[in-house]
Amino acid sequence: MRVHWNVRRNEIPRQVDPIQKRERIALAVIEIMASRGIEEVSLRDVAAEAGCSMGMVQHYFSTKDDMLAFASGYLADRILHKVSAEIAEASGIGTARAALRITMLHLLPLDEERRREARVWLAFLARATVRPELTPVMREARVVAHDFFLERVRAAIAAGELQPSRDGNADARSLHAFADGMVGLVITGVYSADEAEAAIDHQ
Amino acid sequence: MRVHWNVRRNEIPRQVDPIQKRERIALAVIEIMASRGIEEVSLRDVAAEAGCSMGMVQHYFSTKDDMLAFASGYLADRILHKVSAEIAEASGIGTARAALRITMLHLLPLDEERRREARVWLAFLARATVRPELTPVMREARVVAHDFFLERVRAAIAAGELQPSRDGNADARSLHAFADGMVGLVITGVYSADEAEAAIDHQ
Repeated sequence: MRVHWNVRRNEIPRQVDPIQKRERIALAVIEIMASRGIEEVSLRDVAAEAGCSMGMVQHYFSTKDDMLAFASGYLADRILHKVSAEIAEASGIGTARAALRITMLHLLPLDEERRREARVWLAFLARATVRPELTPVMREARVVAHDFFLERVRAAIAAGELQPSRDGNADARSLHAFADGMVGLVITGVYSADEAEAAIDHQ
Repeated sequence: MRVHWNVRRNEIPRQVDPIQKRERIALAVIEIMASRGIEEVSLRDVAAEAGCSMGMVQHYFSTKDDMLAFASGYLADRILHKVSAEIAEASGIGTARAALRITMLHLLPLDEERRREARVWLAFLARATVRPELTPVMREARVVAHDFFLERVRAAIAAGELQPSRDGNADARSLHAFADGMVGLVITGVYSADEAEAAIDHQ
């Protein structure tokens, strides 16, 4: 196999497995989207950002939407892992309701890292509405998010910390939609961080 | 003033006031975004869709974001008017709570017209997060939406149909975020129309 990576300039090890390479390209896509927007995601710029050749990008992703689908799945996984880790860390001191609160707060764009994630996520979402090939990966990420909410809602109901709806699904849907909508409302400055936090507590 | 419109082909009256011209261009932008996506909004295609020259488009909008800002404000106004009309029509039979339900349902992408509006709106939102010049118009549209929710929440509280939070603002924020988030979740097929409706009733 021909090695496309420019090893000296970018200090990338000669042997990188395909998953790492795809992830490196996904990170480049996310970086461009977070700083400049999805319109600026070109083959040339992704290759430059990832420190590889355009041929290498094309080797792993045959179309732009192929690349965006992988990058959105990658970002969804990353966010889920971070939220899970934060909840695990707080589990010693908190209740099931507190875990829900941590989840909601974590999804909101209240610092630069989360603002960057929110920008990227909203761009994926908007594109998925006009590019059917992106829909499955968006849907999958959100079904995972729904299950994540549902698990926590059920724990809170079981602990008697939440008034139960019949099976928790309606609660999970409400919280999920609320969190998703609040992201767009906070990042465009309609609601402040304090107002969002108060709305979470209210919810 | 030179007339740029191709009168015979598009049957546009020779005298069109500047507001109508801007709105015609806004409609062209919305049409392209709804059917093909924001990436396809080019000067050439907008002019073709609006049935005018590129020079005319540039005469009214000096940049793409200028044009997008006007189009997003135009769309927001249109949606608000439609929802208001629907509530006015239903006011004979309904309660303040019913008006809230109509509002929420109307915002969801449950038919083709609303799916088109949702696609356009999500694209505006995503772009506003990376183009600061779009943020003010997005924010203004959503402050209007907040006030719209707040007015209805207060009416429902006054009618004893809703448990009051201190001033209704937290309720309005929750409903607003919930409706916004549900749009993205329904249009990507995460939740069905029935699930969304059940979540609205639950909320």
